Amino acid sequence: MPKLRVHNFSISLDGYAAGPDQSREDPLGVGGTRLHEWAFATEAARAHHGLDGGATGIDDGFVARSNEGIGATIMGRNMFGPIRGAWADDEWRGWWGDDPPYHHDVFVLTHHPRAAITMQGGTTFHFVDDGIEAALERAFGAADGGDVMLGGGASTIQQYLRAGLIDEMHLVIVPILLGGGERLFDHLDDGPVGYECLELVSSPSVAHVRLVRMPSSAVAT
Amino acid sequence: MPKLRVHNFSISLDGYAAGPDQSREDPLGVGGTRLHEWAFATEAARAHHGLDGGATGIDDGFVARSNEGIGATIMGRNMFGPIRGAWADDEWRGWWGDDPPYHHDVFVLTHHPRAAITMQGGTTFHFVDDGIEAALERAFGAADGGDVMLGGGASTIQQYLRAGLIDEMHLVIVPILLGGGERLFDHLDDGPVGYECLELVSSPSVAHVRLVRMPSSAVAT
Repeated sequence: MPKLRVHNFSISLDGYAAGPDQSREDPLGVGGTRLHEWAFATEAARAHHGLDGGATGIDDGFVARSNEGIGATIMGRNMFGPIRGAWADDEWRGWWGDDPPYHHDVFVLTHHPRAAITMQGGTTFHFVDDGIEAALERAFGAADGGDVMLGGGASTIQQYLRAGLIDEMHLVIVPILLGGGERLFDHLDDGPVGYECLELVSSPSVAHVRLVRMPSSAVAT
Repeated sequence: MPKLRVHNFSISLDGYAAGPDQSREDPLGVGGTRLHEWAFATEAARAHHGLDGGATGIDDGFVARSNEGIGATIMGRNMFGPIRGAWADDEWRGWWGDDPPYHHDVFVLTHHPRAAITMQGGTTFHFVDDGIEAALERAFGAADGGDVMLGGGASTIQQYLRAGLIDEMHLVIVPILLGGGERLFDHLDDGPVGYECLELVSSPSVAHVRLVRMPSSAVAT
C-alpha cells in the first residue's frame, strides 16, 4: 500500500515548527530559519537545489532517503507562499523559481480555487480546495503506486494527524529554544495514537526520530 | 560559582514531562512512567537505589555524572509526595523509604509549613514556604560550595526558568507521544533565553541535550 510520509520535519526543543511573529518577510517566524540550517547544510539538500558541496553523514543520509519512492507531494498553502485569502493574480509561483525541486505533482491545500501551474522540470502545482482527503486521493493517483510526501506547515500535519492519515513521520529535533511560535503537537485532542519509534539517532546538530503508525491503530473508515 | 543544575529531566516527543490525568495512583499521569524507563534501566540508577545490574553506556553515563558536585537538592512538593494542601500529619516521608537516595539536604517547595525530617543515610527534608529564591539560598548554603540539583516537576522548573536562575539543564527526549499532560516548555512567556546546546547525543532509547546558560544572558539582580 502506498504511504503518506512526512520527512525532515524540524521542531525546536520546545516543540515549535516555526518561530513567533510569522510574516511575509519572516515566513518561518523569528528564529525559524535556524530550524532548517541542519538540512540546508547537507550535500543532498544542496544537490536538490542544484548546488555543489555540503555535508555528508547522518543528516545527509536522512535528506537523501526522504525522496525515495515519493511520487507526489502535498503541502499547505503557507508552505507554497506568503499570500493569504483569494489569489489576486497568477504571479506567485512558489518559493523555488522556474524549476522547483519536486519534479512531480504537488498538491497545494487552499480554500481558494486556482488553475494548475506547470513549471519546468516536471513539477505541476495543483490547487485543491475540496479538503485534505480529496488532496490525498489525487496525490496517490498522481504518484501512481508511489508514496506521497506531506510537507508542512504544522497545521497541515495536524489536519492529517487528526484524520489518522499519516503512515510515517520523520521528525528532527533541533536543540534550540524558540520560546514561541507554531507548535507541531498542538490542536490534536489527545494526540496522535498508535505511533511507535522505529529509529532514533543523532548527529552533532540534531536528533532524528522516525515514527511509524502501527497497523492495528489505523483509523477505521 | 556554584550552579543550579537540572539533570535527567525527561520529556516526551510532544513535550510532556508528565502524562494526562495525574492522580495519587498515577502521580506521573497516564503513560508518564514510560518517560523514566530509560533511567531506571541504567546501572547508575539501580546502584543509587541499592540494586545490582543494569545497563551501561550513554544513558548510564549521564545518570552517573548527574550527581557529581551536587551538595543539595530542591524539588517541588509533587515530587516529594501526592498530598495536596496542608500537611495532615507527619506520616508521609517521601517516595523513597527510610534511606532516600539523596544523602544530603533536600529542600521541598510548599505553601504549607512543616518541620524538617531527618532520614537515614544523611538525607534531611526541609520544607520551604517562603519562595523559590529562599529555597535556593538555603540550598546553596547547605551545599557549602557544591552545586544544587533542581528536581521536578515541570512547574518547579518553570518557576526557576522564569526567574532566570537555572545554569544548566540536561533534558532527555523520549521518543514517545503522550498526547497530553504537563508540558515542560509552557507558562514561560517568551521562553527561556540565552541557553545554548553544549551537547547532543542519543542512545538507542533517548536523546540527551545539555543546555547551558551563557554568562551574557544572566538575569541582572
